[in-house]
Amino acid sequence: MKILLFDFAETVPTVESLSNAILEAEFTTSNLWILVAAALVFIMHLGFSALESGFVRRKNVVNILYKNMMIIAIGLLTYWFVGFNLMYPGENVGGYFNIPKLMLNPEIADLTSSYGNYTYWTDFIFQAMFAATGATIVSGAVAERIKLEAFLVFALVFVSLIYPIVGFWKWGAGWLDALGFYDFAGSTLVHSVGGWAALAGIIVLGPRKGKYTKKGMRAIRGHNMPLAALGVFLLWFGWYGFNGGSVLSADPAGVSKVFVTTSLAAAAGAIGAALTGFIMFKTHDISMVMNGILGGLVGITAGADVISINGSVVVGLIAGILIPLAVTFFDKMKLDDPVGATSVHLVCGVWGTIAVALFGTLDDGVGTLSDQLIGIVACGVFTFVLSFALFYLIKVTMGLRVTSEEEEKGLDIGEHEMTAYS
Amino acid sequence: MKILLFDFAETVPTVESLSNAILEAEFTTSNLWILVAAALVFIMHLGFSALESGFVRRKNVVNILYKNMMIIAIGLLTYWFVGFNLMYPGENVGGYFNIPKLMLNPEIADLTSSYGNYTYWTDFIFQAMFAATGATIVSGAVAERIKLEAFLVFALVFVSLIYPIVGFWKWGAGWLDALGFYDFAGSTLVHSVGGWAALAGIIVLGPRKGKYTKKGMRAIRGHNMPLAALGVFLLWFGWYGFNGGSVLSADPAGVSKVFVTTSLAAAAGAIGAALTGFIMFKTHDISMVMNGILGGLVGITAGADVISINGSVVVGLIAGILIPLAVTFFDKMKLDDPVGATSVHLVCGVWGTIAVALFGTLDDGVGTLSDQLIGIVACGVFTFVLSFALFYLIKVTMGLRVTSEEEEKGLDIGEHEMTAYS
Amino acid sequence: MKILLFDFAETVPTVESLSNAILEAEFTTSNLWILVAAALVFIMHLGFSALESGFVRRKNVVNILYKNMMIIAIGLLTYWFVGFNLMYPGENVGGYFNIPKLMLNPEIADLTSSYGNYTYWTDFIFQAMFAATGATIVSGAVAERIKLEAFLVFALVFVSLIYPIVGFWKWGAGWLDALGFYDFAGSTLVHSVGGWAALAGIIVLGPRKGKYTKKGMRAIRGHNMPLAALGVFLLWFGWYGFNGGSVLSADPAGVSKVFVTTSLAAAAGAIGAALTGFIMFKTHDISMVMNGILGGLVGITAGADVISINGSVVVGLIAGILIPLAVTFFDKMKLDDPVGATSVHLVCGVWGTIAVALFGTLDDGVGTLSDQLIGIVACGVFTFVLSFALFYLIKVTMGLRVTSEEEEKGLDIGEHEMTAYS
Repeated sequence: MKILLFDFAETVPTVESLSNAILEAEFTTSNLWILVAAALVFIMHLGFSALESGFVRRKNVVNILYKNMMIIAIGLLTYWFVGFNLMYPGENVGGYFNIPKLMLNPEIADLTSSYGNYTYWTDFIFQAMFAATGATIVSGAVAERIKLEAFLVFALVFVSLIYPIVGFWKWGAGWLDALGFYDFAGSTLVHSVGGWAALAGIIVLGPRKGKYTKKGMRAIRGHNMPLAALGVFLLWFGWYGFNGGSVLSADPAGVSKVFVTTSLAAAAGAIGAALTGFIMFKTHDISMVMNGILGGLVGITAGADVISINGSVVVGLIAGILIPLAVTFFDKMKLDDPVGATSVHLVCGVWGTIAVALFGTLDDGVGTLSDQLIGIVACGVFTFVLSFALFYLIKVTMGLRVTSEEEEKGLDIGEHEMTAYS
Repeated sequence: MKILLFDFAETVPTVESLSNAILEAEFTTSNLWILVAAALVFIMHLGFSALESGFVRRKNVVNILYKNMMIIAIGLLTYWFVGFNLMYPGENVGGYFNIPKLMLNPEIADLTSSYGNYTYWTDFIFQAMFAATGATIVSGAVAERIKLEAFLVFALVFVSLIYPIVGFWKWGAGWLDALGFYDFAGSTLVHSVGGWAALAGIIVLGPRKGKYTKKGMRAIRGHNMPLAALGVFLLWFGWYGFNGGSVLSADPAGVSKVFVTTSLAAAAGAIGAALTGFIMFKTHDISMVMNGILGGLVGITAGADVISINGSVVVGLIAGILIPLAVTFFDKMKLDDPVGATSVHLVCGVWGTIAVALFGTLDDGVGTLSDQLIGIVACGVFTFVLSFALFYLIKVTMGLRVTSEEEEKGLDIGEHEMTAYS
Repeated sequence: MKILLFDFAETVPTVESLSNAILEAEFTTSNLWILVAAALVFIMHLGFSALESGFVRRKNVVNILYKNMMIIAIGLLTYWFVGFNLMYPGENVGGYFNIPKLMLNPEIADLTSSYGNYTYWTDFIFQAMFAATGATIVSGAVAERIKLEAFLVFALVFVSLIYPIVGFWKWGAGWLDALGFYDFAGSTLVHSVGGWAALAGIIVLGPRKGKYTKKGMRAIRGHNMPLAALGVFLLWFGWYGFNGGSVLSADPAGVSKVFVTTSLAAAAGAIGAALTGFIMFKTHDISMVMNGILGGLVGITAGADVISINGSVVVGLIAGILIPLAVTFFDKMKLDDPVGATSVHLVCGVWGTIAVALFGTLDDGVGTLSDQLIGIVACGVFTFVLSFALFYLIKVTMGLRVTSEEEEKGLDIGEHEMTAYS
C-alpha cells in the first residue's frame, strides 16, 4: 500500500481508480490515527512510572523506574517474538490456545490487517503497546518489597504468555468472543487481568514491613505528589489513544463518542471519589481523587463505544465511589497495595465490564450480564491461578522478596547501589 | 456518519457517491485533527498544574494539584450539563444570553456540527477542554491563601456560567461577533477573561502574608523549578492544539500557518522577556523566560491565523517585553500573584487582542482597533464585576481566605492533612 | 491550498475535479501528520531538559533549564531568519554552501513544498524543530561548568550556521546526497553532529572539578532520577515524530514500519545496555538503561525506513551494548560528559549510520559502507573543527568556563541568583 499522491497526473483516472484512491485516502487516515493512538498508549507507560514512583517512598524510586523501563522493553520484544502471533493467530485454532509462529511475518508487512483499516505493522505496534500494561499494573502493587530479578521473570512470562492467551479468547476471536462477551478496550482483558495478577503477587509476597501492626494499619505516604499527579494526567492523556484507538479506524462518530465518554467518566470518577473520600476520611484526600480519575477511566474502557454519554457519567461516578471503598476493603483484608492498583484496575475493571450489560445502548455485539460475568470469572480465575502459581514458583526457586534489611534500607541501595535524589 | 471503507466493492460507484466519499474522507481527517487537538488542550491542564505547583511553596503543593484536578473534572461535567448549550445555542436568541437546554442532545450526536468539519461530539469535547482553562488561570493567582471549598464554588460558577456567556458573545455568534470583534482562539475570551477573574480574586483576597512588608516587597520563590519548566513546555505543546485546533478543520494552509505563528511568538516571547528581565533585574531570571514564553503564546492566540509570520515575531517579542514590566507593575500595586497569571493572561491577552487590529493581514473578519477595544472592555468589565461580586459573596458567606495559622502552616496540612513530599 | 469541504454541493463534479479533490484529501492527511510530528519533536526539547536537569547536580538545575528554553527559542528564530533557507535553498548552488535569502518567503506560503505532501509552512516548522536539537545535545555534555552567555553564543552560531550547512549536504540535495550517502532522519546529520560539537566543547572546557583525581575517577550522580526518567520516556515519545515524520508523508506502510523499527530498537537498546551494564558494573545501573534506550533510538534513526524489523532489534541491541562501553571509554580518556551525550549521540549516531549499509534492505537509495563512512567522516571533521574553533574563540574572548568558586557554589546561584528548589 503506497499513497497515490500525484499519480493521477500521469494517467486518465477511471471511476475504478478514483474509488480505489478514495479507499486509500480513508485507509491512510485510519492508519495514521492508530499510530498516533499507539504513541499515546506508549505515554501511559510514563504515566504509570510517574504515578508509581510518586506513590512509593523515596528509598524505592529508582527501583520502580527501572522496573517500568524494563517492562516496556520486555513487553515490546516478547510481543514481537511470540505474543502478537499468540494473540492474533490469523486463523482460529480451537478458541482456547494456539501454537504461534515466532516473530512478525515480513511477507505480509505491506498488506492491510484483517480489519482493513491499517497495515500489519500498525496492528502490531498498537497491540504491542497494550501488552506491557498488565505487567505495569502489577509492578505498582508489589512495589517496595519484591526482588528486581524475580519481578522481571514474572513480567516476562506474564507479558509473553498469560496476557496474550486471555486476550486471544476475545480479541483473537476465541471462545469468549464466540460466546458474546463484550470488552471494547480492555476493562477485563487488560485492567482486571493486570489486577488479578497484582492480587496474586500481593498475597504471595505479603505486606510491607510495618504496614499492618498490632496497633492497626499505618498509612505509608507516597514521597512525591506532583510526580503522582503528573502520572495521573499522563494516563488520562494516553487513554485517548487506549480507548480512541480501539475504535480501530478513524470513524468520526466512533472516535469522537469514545473521546466524550472517556472524558466524562474520568471527570465523574474524580468527583465520586472526592465526595466519598471526604465523607469517609473527613479530609480532601488527593490520592482518592487521583485513583478516582483512573477508576473512572478503567470503568468506561469496556463500553466506551456502546454506553451513552449520560451513561458514561454514571459509570464513572460509581467507579469513583468504589475507589475509597475498595482501598479501605483491601486494607481491612491486610492486602497491601502501595499504589491502589487492585482498587483501580481490578475492582473498576470488573465494574466496567458489568456496566456494559447495564448501560450498553447498541444492540449489536453487547454481551448480556451473564456473558459479561462468565468473561470476568474466566479471565479472573485463569489469570489469578497462573499468576499465583508463577509467583509461588519464583518464591521457592530464586526467591521473591528482598531481605528485611534491604526492605528497611530501600531497594534503590539494595538493588541499584544508588539513590533517586542527592 | 460512518466511514465508507470498502463499501465500493459492493456497488458500481457513481460520480455522486464518489464526491460524497471524498467529502467523508475530508470530514474524517478534520474530525480527527480536532480530537487530537482536544487531547493536546487537555494536556495544558497538566501544564498549568505543573507550572503552578512549581511556582508555589512546598507547603501548598498538594492543594494546588487538588484544585487543578477538580477544575478539569468540574469543567468537563458542567460544560456537559449546561455550559456547551449556553455557549453554542444553535439558534441565536438575542445576542447577550440564552436559556440553555440541559445536557447534550443524543439525537444529533451523529450529525455534523454547524461547521460541517466534525461531529457534534467532537465539537463538544474540543470546547469542553477550553472551558476549564479560565478557572485554572485563576487558581494560580489566588494560590497559597484561598480556602479550597471557596475556590471550588467559584470555579463551578465561573466555568458553568461566566465563561460560556462571554464566549457566546463571540463564538456563539452573539453581539460581539455581529460587531466585528475578532478573537481567533481566545486571547480575550479565554485568557484575559481568566486574567480579569484572577485580578478580582487577588483584590478580594489580599496578598499572602509577608509579601508586602514595611521594608518593601519580598520575593517568595517557587519551590521547584524543573516542575515549573515542565509546565511551560507542556503548555507550549498543548497550545498547538489550542490554536491549531481553532482552525476548526485540518485545512493545510490554515493549520500549518497557525503552527508557525504560534511557535515563533513563543520563541520571541522568551527572548523579549529574557533581555528585558536581564536589563531590569541584572540577572538571568528563569521565571521571566517561562512567563515570556507563555506571554508570547497568549499574545498570538487572538490572531494566530491572520497575523503574518514576521508579524508573529513582533507580537511575541512585545508580549515577552511586557512580562517583566507587568510583573513589576502588579507588585508595585501590591497585587500579589504567585505565578504571574495576570501578567501572562490578562496583560498579554489584551495585547494580543489589540495586535489583531495592528498586524492582521486578512481582509475578511479582522476587527478594527475600536471593535477590538470594545470587545476587550466588554469582556473585561463583565467578567471582573461578576467575579468580584462572586468572590465577595463567598467571602461574606462561607469565607474566602484560610486562617493566618493555616496560611503559615501551609494549605497541604490545613486542607488535606498531608504533605507533598516526604 | 484550501480543503474542498462541501464545494461539490455547488457544481457537478468532473473526473478531473474528483481526482484533484482526492489529491487534496491525501495532501491534507500528510500535512496533518507532519504537523503532529513537529509537535512531537518539540516535546523532545522537554525530554532533553528533563533528562539533563535530572542528570546534573541540584546546584546547576536552573542553569540547564534556562539553557534549554533559550535553545529552542534561538533555534526557531534563527531557523526562521536564516537556517531554513541555508539548508533548503530550493535550487542547488554547488553542493557545499549557498548564500541564503533571509526569512521565510511570504509569497510561496500557500504553495506545496517541493515534496508535494505538505505546505511550505509545515516544511519549515518540522525542520525548525530539528534544528535546535544539536545544540541541546551539546548543552548536556558541557553542563555544570560552562558560562551561560558563552554557551548561548555557541548555540546561536551552531544552530544558525553549522547545523544547516551540514544538513544541506544531504537533505538540501548537496554533495553527500549526490554521493549516495543515506541518513533517513539524522543519526549523523543531527545526532553525531551534535555529538561531535559536544566532544569539542568537552575538550576545550575540561572536566568538572573533582571528576578525575589522582585517586581515580569519581562518579558524580545526577540529582533527580524521576526527572531523568521522565526525559527518557518523553524523548522516546517524541522520536515517533522525529522518525515517523521523516517519512515526509502519511504513507501508511512507511510510517507504520518506522514506528515498529523505532520501538523495537529502543526496547533492544534498553536490554542490551542493562545486560552489558550489569556484567560490567555488577549492579542494575538505571543510567545505563536510560542511555541504552536513547542509544537504540539514535542508532535506528539513520535507517528506520530501510532496515528490516528483525534488523532493527539487532541494531538497537548493539547500540545498547555500546553505551556502557562508550561511557567507560570516555571516562578513561578523561572526557567528562555529565549526561553521556557523546556515548548516546556520537557513538550510536556513527553506529546507526554504518548500520544502514549493513542492515538496509531497500535497494533504492541506501548508501554503501564507503558512502556511509565518507558521510560520517565529512560531517564529523567539519563539525568538530568548526565547533572546536568556535569554543576556542569564545574561550579567548569572552571566556568559556565559570570561575572555580562559581562551579563550587553552582551555576544556579552564580548565573541566576536563585536555587532550583526551596
